Amino acid sequence: MSTFAAVDVIIAKRDRRELTGEQIEWVIDAYTHGEVAEEQMSALLMAILLNGMSGTEIAHWTTAMLNSGIRMDLSQVGRPTVDKHSTGGVGDKISLPLAPLVAACGAAVPQLSGRGLGHTGGTLDKMESIPGWRATLSPAEMTAQLASVGAVICAASADLAPADRKLYALRDVTGTVESIPMIAASIMSKKIAEGTGALVLDVKVGSGAFMKRSDHAAELARTMVELGAREGVRTSALLTDMSTPLGVAVGNAIEVAESVEVLAGGGPADVVELTIALAREMVALAGLDADPADVLASGRAMDSWRAMVQAQGGDPDAALPTPKFREIVVADTAGVVSRLDALSVGVAAWRLGAGRARREHDVQQAAGILCRAKPGDVVAVGQPLFELHTDTPDRFPAALADLADAVDIAAPGTVVGKTPLVMEVIRG
Amino acid sequence: MSTFAAVDVIIAKRDRRELTGEQIEWVIDAYTHGEVAEEQMSALLMAILLNGMSGTEIAHWTTAMLNSGIRMDLSQVGRPTVDKHSTGGVGDKISLPLAPLVAACGAAVPQLSGRGLGHTGGTLDKMESIPGWRATLSPAEMTAQLASVGAVICAASADLAPADRKLYALRDVTGTVESIPMIAASIMSKKIAEGTGALVLDVKVGSGAFMKRSDHAAELARTMVELGAREGVRTSALLTDMSTPLGVAVGNAIEVAESVEVLAGGGPADVVELTIALAREMVALAGLDADPADVLASGRAMDSWRAMVQAQGGDPDAALPTPKFREIVVADTAGVVSRLDALSVGVAAWRLGAGRARREHDVQQAAGILCRAKPGDVVAVGQPLFELHTDTPDRFPAALADLADAVDIAAPGTVVGKTPLVMEVIRG
Repeated sequence: MSTFAAVDVIIAKRDRRELTGEQIEWVIDAYTHGEVAEEQMSALLMAILLNGMSGTEIAHWTTAMLNSGIRMDLSQVGRPTVDKHSTGGVGDKISLPLAPLVAACGAAVPQLSGRGLGHTGGTLDKMESIPGWRATLSPAEMTAQLASVGAVICAASADLAPADRKLYALRDVTGTVESIPMIAASIMSKKIAEGTGALVLDVKVGSGAFMKRSDHAAELARTMVELGAREGVRTSALLTDMSTPLGVAVGNAIEVAESVEVLAGGGPADVVELTIALAREMVALAGLDADPADVLASGRAMDSWRAMVQAQGGDPDAALPTPKFREIVVADTAGVVSRLDALSVGVAAWRLGAGRARREHDVQQAAGILCRAKPGDVVAVGQPLFELHTDTPDRFPAALADLADAVDIAAPGTVVGKTPLVMEVIRG
Repeated sequence: MSTFAAVDVIIAKRDRRELTGEQIEWVIDAYTHGEVAEEQMSALLMAILLNGMSGTEIAHWTTAMLNSGIRMDLSQVGRPTVDKHSTGGVGDKISLPLAPLVAACGAAVPQLSGRGLGHTGGTLDKMESIPGWRATLSPAEMTAQLASVGAVICAASADLAPADRKLYALRDVTGTVESIPMIAASIMSKKIAEGTGALVLDVKVGSGAFMKRSDHAAELARTMVELGAREGVRTSALLTDMSTPLGVAVGNAIEVAESVEVLAGGGPADVVELTIALAREMVALAGLDADPADVLASGRAMDSWRAMVQAQGGDPDAALPTPKFREIVVADTAGVVSRLDALSVGVAAWRLGAGRARREHDVQQAAGILCRAKPGDVVAVGQPLFELHTDTPDRFPAALADLADAVDIAAPGTVVGKTPLVMEVIRG
């Protein structure tokens, strides 16, 4: 491998020159091994954020992060593999019903997930509210479960794209998270490393999402779809609305409960709609011809869920944790809910203990918010809007403050226009 | 003092928002005390480099660096104080004749200087080739010498603008040196801290200078003149040519020898011209009406030089170090020297040992280059162009390679146009 002076690589990007593949390969490798200092990498990251990266640079950056660790081989699973990744939203529990549903359609879903940080919840945090369930599997356990059950939701091994892990921690404290090239490279290096054959991206747009604007979201989606194609992973992206929370439940155990409702044939319409839409795209990319709606109706997705939970030590029949304290927020005017702000609800749930402020903190399994009225719903004075759950009631005031402006109620009879849930599909 | 989250300050500048005085004061203070991490400051520096700072932000940044240390009080000196700062050039020994000349005109010159790093030499490195001379004075010694002799050239105390010292080391390894706001703040915080009442800036322009373009140099000059005015230091700036070395000697001991020639009434015309021009500006800012040309001719500047050297333990009559090895480069065509590149000569002298590659290295006192032909000079085949000096002859090949393209010789009879040495004067 060539070697470079870190300062020359920084200056090249600072001065808007395109970095070569060799420069990118070297700087990621040297940073991962501690030969490029944190302060040098953060200067480079800021220069990348402000000056951008070309498609070729993003591809090199992704490959370099991928090459910093192992790439799993799922060829022994005996089913086509397909995964889903969401850029994160409020009430986004879709992975929970989706993975077993797509497994029941005949694919294997190797869903390596993370924990939440900030106002969007983490899939592992949610699953851990199931008594006995464990997030950590060895690669051999993961492969065996994919072959037998067809779905796994577990923690990513530290051996997958370790450069990304180190870079993410640095970006977090240096104001360099909000870079589309780096977000794309971060997501795709991990997903390609996990060994999936196909991938569907759920790119969220709106107040509760990382991307507030649909043009930025579309750019991120296209960048990731191209990166997948370059590395031989069939990749599609759905741009989906995150201006309002998904479903009713925002938290941990309450999101598991809502997911089980969906698997049982019920659940909120938006959660069902998005689960089916993502499942259809995944099944198509996997080359299968099952119809996820039929499979959901048949109960086979619920069977896969139970098998998946049990395979990881969980008891699908155990009672889920319940909160020690509840508060109800009611409507003070009658009318039609014209807006329910995803970000406010996400932040309020986080303040109640559903999320963490620092990586080393624990979450409260029973904390969260039930949104009792969604946009378009008619409400009377005194009717519940939110049900707040926590084990630590001193958290109520701050959460209530976040919710103060979260809902708009329009005059009775107002027709509330609805953003379509799936806004755009981007295919390679 | 207010407190902020470092990441919020970084994001504000990243997103092109103007930083408040409170934010800047906090971030410099917290960084100096280790509460803002190196990787956070380097991300902020890159954002500043790429997004710029307003005049108000630069003023706050300068004040914050000034406030990180002590501000010297020279009111007991009993003479008007005036200093000069050069942004650095090749063969720039002007401080050596200038400080005693201005002292002989009646002012006190508190010249706190640095060591060289890279291709531009350091004033302290040059002075240290005088046997016995020491660079380190206590504040009391410095004040006493200013009162008695009127001139001091010594090392800046670590108590002056310590934030600048820490920031400079960070900028050096993170590709964030080349920021006009930060260069201006760095220079002015140190000069204001040293307590001088007036200041003349010699802002170099050309291949051997930090600023290659005169518009950038003028912007830097104007920024610094404004900063001086805000802090009550009467400040002017001369933009001067650095496309070719100043004088004949580029090195350490050989630059001292050339400076003594000037003080004795001889020396290269360009060195004399610039010394007088800067001295006139300094004397005017100090409110004195002496004519530096007359004072130089009178021999009183030489008296001040001898007193200044002796006050710091040096022997002005001692022989200066001589090199162990010499090489001569001769002209291979006859004609008129149409170009002598400052950067090439500076780098070659640095390679011979006159400068250092790392802060902890020593320089060779006798190393350097004598430029035997300057632009406009007529040369015959075989006539010396350069005389190279070093104590370590294995350094010759690299230095000779740097000089290979340093000189252009035009056909005999060609009239070589000359850039004026003083290109522009900027006053407050």
